[in-house]
Amino acid sequence: MRNAVEPFHAIAISQLAHRLKQEGRSISHMEFGQPSTGAPSTAIAVAHQILDSDAMGYWESPALKARIARHYAERHGVTVAPERILLTCGASPALVLALATAFQPDDQVATARPGYVAYRNTLRALHMQPVEIDCGKEVRFQMSRGALAALDPAPKGLILASPANPTGTIIRSDELAGLADLCRARGIRILSDEIYHGLSYGMAADTMLRHAEDAIILNSFSKYFSMAGWRLGWMVAPADLVEEARKRMGNLFLTPPSLSQHAALAAFDAPEELEGHVETYRRNRALLLGALPELGLGEIAPPDGAFYIYASVAHLTDDSIGFCKRMLTDTGIATAPGVDFDPVRGHRFVRFSFAVATPLVEEAIERLRAWLPNQARVAG
Amino acid sequence: MRNAVEPFHAIAISQLAHRLKQEGRSISHMEFGQPSTGAPSTAIAVAHQILDSDAMGYWESPALKARIARHYAERHGVTVAPERILLTCGASPALVLALATAFQPDDQVATARPGYVAYRNTLRALHMQPVEIDCGKEVRFQMSRGALAALDPAPKGLILASPANPTGTIIRSDELAGLADLCRARGIRILSDEIYHGLSYGMAADTMLRHAEDAIILNSFSKYFSMAGWRLGWMVAPADLVEEARKRMGNLFLTPPSLSQHAALAAFDAPEELEGHVETYRRNRALLLGALPELGLGEIAPPDGAFYIYASVAHLTDDSIGFCKRMLTDTGIATAPGVDFDPVRGHRFVRFSFAVATPLVEEAIERLRAWLPNQARVAG
Repeated sequence: MRNAVEPFHAIAISQLAHRLKQEGRSISHMEFGQPSTGAPSTAIAVAHQILDSDAMGYWESPALKARIARHYAERHGVTVAPERILLTCGASPALVLALATAFQPDDQVATARPGYVAYRNTLRALHMQPVEIDCGKEVRFQMSRGALAALDPAPKGLILASPANPTGTIIRSDELAGLADLCRARGIRILSDEIYHGLSYGMAADTMLRHAEDAIILNSFSKYFSMAGWRLGWMVAPADLVEEARKRMGNLFLTPPSLSQHAALAAFDAPEELEGHVETYRRNRALLLGALPELGLGEIAPPDGAFYIYASVAHLTDDSIGFCKRMLTDTGIATAPGVDFDPVRGHRFVRFSFAVATPLVEEAIERLRAWLPNQARVAG
Repeated sequence: MRNAVEPFHAIAISQLAHRLKQEGRSISHMEFGQPSTGAPSTAIAVAHQILDSDAMGYWESPALKARIARHYAERHGVTVAPERILLTCGASPALVLALATAFQPDDQVATARPGYVAYRNTLRALHMQPVEIDCGKEVRFQMSRGALAALDPAPKGLILASPANPTGTIIRSDELAGLADLCRARGIRILSDEIYHGLSYGMAADTMLRHAEDAIILNSFSKYFSMAGWRLGWMVAPADLVEEARKRMGNLFLTPPSLSQHAALAAFDAPEELEGHVETYRRNRALLLGALPELGLGEIAPPDGAFYIYASVAHLTDDSIGFCKRMLTDTGIATAPGVDFDPVRGHRFVRFSFAVATPLVEEAIERLRAWLPNQARVAG
């Protein structure tokens, strides 16, 4: 039997948003997790050069792997051999690669719920079993050592996300260490999704590389580096899996886009531009955290990182898809319905992505201020 | 237990070739299946424009899907709804997507041996069972209706490649129809890898779309369109699998590179440039087909398409990897060892890729003419 795989419902919202825009409506795109800014100017400049000088065959950039390794040394004080870094067409195929390398069909892999929809769906598509742990506001929607310890039998794997999607919450360094200890003791392989690293508003996110030698790390140029459509991510494979991961990389994916690799290397040379984006997100976050609770949206765990706010609309609906459509149609604000992240409790949540220009956030807040007080509760 | 997945041995040959080049040696790169030419000028020009005007978020190009659909109408007279076309980061992830959509773990999928190494390995990585049918020179190394009929039980799936890798042989239109009939009768789902379409030197390759409504088609911009490093391919999903394929696309891969989609659309506007490459390959093919048999290389099925010649070196070795290394070290000619394509009989074959400039082929033939007659047989 074919395993059930769910679509992203945010895609339907986005399609509706584009239709409304074509009809002349003013739309705030806060439904997808992507920066509205483009790649750094250093990346664009190098891309122009390479377009005119390189035939661009199948290629993996040794310089980019070395640069990523240097990044771990500088940012986290941890030594990673460049040979352990595998470049992929984004973090999504990196997740496929990690799962196909580390696990077998029927293996159980634990994740936090709410969580990124592709964890559940990719596990199912590969015939593995997601074990979702309900993580509420009281634990900032994050995996805890206690919740993991309570699983019996121990799962084969654990996917962590810090900062998380859809909540932006970060797992503190001492908590990462505790989870690593527990996983070591119980024989659980950790996949640490660090795709939102670099985007934080207080404490910076630590890497699991510092705590678990056998963890698999996933990351990407899509978020902090503002290069979503360039489709470039990476995986750091632990020593015991490098060879198997590399064989799967060559067969399942071959190589990542050549131009994106050249551009990504240059993106490391634009720290001011990239930190400028973080400052925009910081302002947007403050504006939304100020306004949304006032407007009745609840259960918000203030995001430590990423560019999301996950908020309850339970007083207005128990059909988050219908609510998102209604809000979009009435106000022009596109958001992601909570069911994309939590099939059990997400019917009463929405996710705002604030990776947009600040005036758009200000405008969205004004529209919500006019619209929300007039909404009566609609049953799903 | 983890399934055995083999590396591409041609990668080791290529690495040796690059080392020798750095030492100042003159190298003929004939080991990989990629054009030495870059993308068409129309594609490069559009890429420059988009780099300066588009933030390039996650994106699927409706225009490109429509253009590919038009291509099927114009080239093959077959109607394909653009909604059935899924754009992927190359044909490799398209194969992963197709297999994960159409089959389950433990399903048997038949392939011709020799064949593209990733068929076997990707099936194994997804815990499916490759059933390799030995196809020799007498059947032009291609799958036949008789060989497929003899399989008992019937496999769940069949992967066809026409033109094929490593041999370039094409399955005639009437043979495709016969295979489609048999698969319909036996309940076998066809995956037709048409990545070398457009590259043929006599009869053109037909598409399985004309013969089997429920077939899955794989293709790419890497070969005919000369855009290997741009990582863009596509899958045509049959009506009964479109929805399931699309869900897996969003979760496992998200979107293909945005810039590559813009550029690929423009690549359709460079027919003269692209047909010029085909003329180069035609000349190279004729030169090699003239020279190699004279030099003692045998069992060659003249390639109808693609840019490969698969030839026996059984009189010289039964260790094709060792032979390729020796030939590279002595002559500077890099080739792919037959074991990449046939673990049973490939120890005595090598594959020449002739997607290079003609003077390189002429030079390679001169070097082989000087080197081959002096080689004694070396046991593996």
